[in-house]
Amino acid sequence: MSEYKLTPQSEDFNEWFNTLVQRADLADYGPVRGTMIIKPYGWALWENIQQGLDKRFKATGHVNAGFPMFIPKSFLEKEAKHVEGFSPELAVVTIGGGEELAEPIVVRPTSETLAGHAYANWIKSYRDLPVLINQWNSVVRWELRTKLFLRTAEFWWQEGHTAHATYEEAETETRQMLDVYHDFAVNEAAVPVIRGRKSNIERFAGADQTYTIEAMMKDRKALQAGTSHNLGQNFARAFDIQYLDRNNELQHCWTTSWGFSTRFIGGMVMTHGDDKGLVLPPRLAPFQVVIVPIYKNDDEKSQVMPVVQRIQAELVAADVRVKVDNREDLTPGFKFNDWELRGVPVRMEIGPKDVSKGTVALARRDMPGKEGKSFVSQAGLTSQVQTLLKTIQANLLETATQFRDAHIQDARNYDEFKQIIAAGEWGDCWWAGSDADEKRIKEETGATTRCFPLAQPEGTSQCMLTAQTANEVVLFAKAY
Amino acid sequence: MSEYKLTPQSEDFNEWFNTLVQRADLADYGPVRGTMIIKPYGWALWENIQQGLDKRFKATGHVNAGFPMFIPKSFLEKEAKHVEGFSPELAVVTIGGGEELAEPIVVRPTSETLAGHAYANWIKSYRDLPVLINQWNSVVRWELRTKLFLRTAEFWWQEGHTAHATYEEAETETRQMLDVYHDFAVNEAAVPVIRGRKSNIERFAGADQTYTIEAMMKDRKALQAGTSHNLGQNFARAFDIQYLDRNNELQHCWTTSWGFSTRFIGGMVMTHGDDKGLVLPPRLAPFQVVIVPIYKNDDEKSQVMPVVQRIQAELVAADVRVKVDNREDLTPGFKFNDWELRGVPVRMEIGPKDVSKGTVALARRDMPGKEGKSFVSQAGLTSQVQTLLKTIQANLLETATQFRDAHIQDARNYDEFKQIIAAGEWGDCWWAGSDADEKRIKEETGATTRCFPLAQPEGTSQCMLTAQTANEVVLFAKAY
Repeated sequence: MSEYKLTPQSEDFNEWFNTLVQRADLADYGPVRGTMIIKPYGWALWENIQQGLDKRFKATGHVNAGFPMFIPKSFLEKEAKHVEGFSPELAVVTIGGGEELAEPIVVRPTSETLAGHAYANWIKSYRDLPVLINQWNSVVRWELRTKLFLRTAEFWWQEGHTAHATYEEAETETRQMLDVYHDFAVNEAAVPVIRGRKSNIERFAGADQTYTIEAMMKDRKALQAGTSHNLGQNFARAFDIQYLDRNNELQHCWTTSWGFSTRFIGGMVMTHGDDKGLVLPPRLAPFQVVIVPIYKNDDEKSQVMPVVQRIQAELVAADVRVKVDNREDLTPGFKFNDWELRGVPVRMEIGPKDVSKGTVALARRDMPGKEGKSFVSQAGLTSQVQTLLKTIQANLLETATQFRDAHIQDARNYDEFKQIIAAGEWGDCWWAGSDADEKRIKEETGATTRCFPLAQPEGTSQCMLTAQTANEVVLFAKAY
Repeated sequence: MSEYKLTPQSEDFNEWFNTLVQRADLADYGPVRGTMIIKPYGWALWENIQQGLDKRFKATGHVNAGFPMFIPKSFLEKEAKHVEGFSPELAVVTIGGGEELAEPIVVRPTSETLAGHAYANWIKSYRDLPVLINQWNSVVRWELRTKLFLRTAEFWWQEGHTAHATYEEAETETRQMLDVYHDFAVNEAAVPVIRGRKSNIERFAGADQTYTIEAMMKDRKALQAGTSHNLGQNFARAFDIQYLDRNNELQHCWTTSWGFSTRFIGGMVMTHGDDKGLVLPPRLAPFQVVIVPIYKNDDEKSQVMPVVQRIQAELVAADVRVKVDNREDLTPGFKFNDWELRGVPVRMEIGPKDVSKGTVALARRDMPGKEGKSFVSQAGLTSQVQTLLKTIQANLLETATQFRDAHIQDARNYDEFKQIIAAGEWGDCWWAGSDADEKRIKEETGATTRCFPLAQPEGTSQCMLTAQTANEVVLFAKAY
């Protein structure tokens, strides 16, 4: 388990990540190339993410449903840009029940076409609108180069699919869900994402407008952490999603879709993790507190364990997610390393001295060493732990925000820009370039536009590339 | 919506079911033949089922994980009976990312082989045991004749996969999970299932022993509602799942698997439903109470709605799942029918007279007409509603149990048996027949053994077919 020493981030960030997610029992490879098994510890994290998002979806009026994983291949072809975007990544079923199928079936890479088909059947009049449906599932996109959580042939996510009577309602929905993702990422995961609009080139295949939340990893590469698409009437026209309006006239709907996936787990690992392992935000950590009992013999054990059990019960009663590590054949030191690797926010040590003094030792995962260690009274312990968890949560967000802001640089011209990108930073620049300019920059520097941030400076300025008047600022970065 | 009249159960049970599940917005067909869309109302029911089961799984020490949907075809072939059982139903992916695959991939029909492969990697020593993992997913079994919820090409379920050091532990786990299913079905769904052991013929492909819960539908056909398998060392040997025991000797593990699917939703529909539609058990119903406000004009509406909103808030605060039907362009009568179709346990009507008298009208879904209607005070309403929901839950279970017991008949010989089966009843009989005898009975009568109930009478008696001494009683029935 944790006797293995991780490669330091500074030495090989990629190696650090790949080793960590397996060593910390988040995930493993499946037998089919590029597939992933999310192990129980990783899945518990995903369940907490699901809960945090699902309650926000329901609070904004959405309901869940279950759509099939199979799509007739012909469906994808109904929306021209959509099929162009997804064709290279499809897994195709050609045999069913021992027989060659008349029409090949695709395993869903995303479900806009299924929703389009169903909504065309379900929606009759303006009274049926809006339709606000989400689903939790897994999707398949065949990938040649794979990386656990970040790029696998199958991944888990949620995909929302909504239909509306007007463009304005669809746009409001698209932006609302972006805000939901932002709120979740910042306040639950302590990942300070930046909200923005994607460029033409980076837009979802079939969308009129794509919004994104972009996160900065500790290697300063960008991670697209969630997207929300205004699909205009593209899918409504392709699938005949129509409704009778109040004047009894037939109109096409306006649709949206939005998704947030297990890739975000990779994003959390790379936002908060350090050379000792994971650092999980308290609000999402499967275990918020691990108690390590310390004793040398049965006599000490019989003093320590009743206190451990009492404190455990008090924490459970206060809804603190607590784990007691009572493994018999491992040293406390081994256990400390093991739980550091797994990123548990607070470690509580209880030994015979603590029992006699009525104290415990608390160690913060986000602050290794003496600085993060405190000795506190068992009286009022639960509320102290709750306060500490909030402090850690806030500290993770502040640290990540400072890190992010320290690595976004203003680029006033292309020379400056190239230096910034070459140094691994993000470039913040006024932009009036064309799609072709954007592609050229990608070829020359490896950086892509991450987004036009929703928070824009006032006024206009010179485009960093073309020196034309630019109305907007864009963020460029190398990205996962 | 509900203006459509259902075919009565007595006229055509099959037609009643097929129409109802679509009309009540539980499910619809997907575009690929045999696939199902579970609509939001049906999915909300499934989410409540998931919660009820998941908390029981966690309380018995299980954790969730996510396994891939793809299995190398060769994996299935490692366990001889398993491949024989599942081969005819497979969906096979032969193309990935535009290229023909070197080895075909199967979309999981069940995941024993994936668990086997992973556990062989993960388990090293007795310290790693038991492994107690569950997953919520969907699986694919190609079906020629499909029926929503009961038999579709894809369905949702949970599948537990556990590994143990001894046969006894595996058997204890298998039986424990059967008891979990039984407890859930009886106490949450009011479906009085019978626990028992499957015959050799009806056993899961690859299991040493299969246990089942069997339910009786209102057409008296049996529905296998959940199964729990002791897999012995079959998969451990096929996949080399081995551990070092305390003496440092290598041993094969003993494994189990157990599953419970969306087919159970069909079972609930056919256990409780009537000619007016669904009858949902309060503990699982997406809405436990629907409030229909009654008014003829704006003046009455302004009197009624504040009371409706106050009562809604009180019920929500007490965790009662309540829906206010404030649709403007529909009559109360239409709404009554609509919610009866959808099986909401309690309808609350509030009109101007109720406002002035401080009362509401309550109507029980399980007791249509005047008998189920009461007029109660708004004072203490929440606790009255909670009591009523418990009464309805208990009444559904009692009614279904009485129905079940009234339709299980003792068959002392084959002539009696044939009459019982021809009359559509279940035959309860002493049995010492062979596998061949069982097959012959299926051919001659259409009935199969459902299970050897765990609750057995004392002693021995004559086998109903062979007249040999039989040690056990078996249940025969026609089944879905």
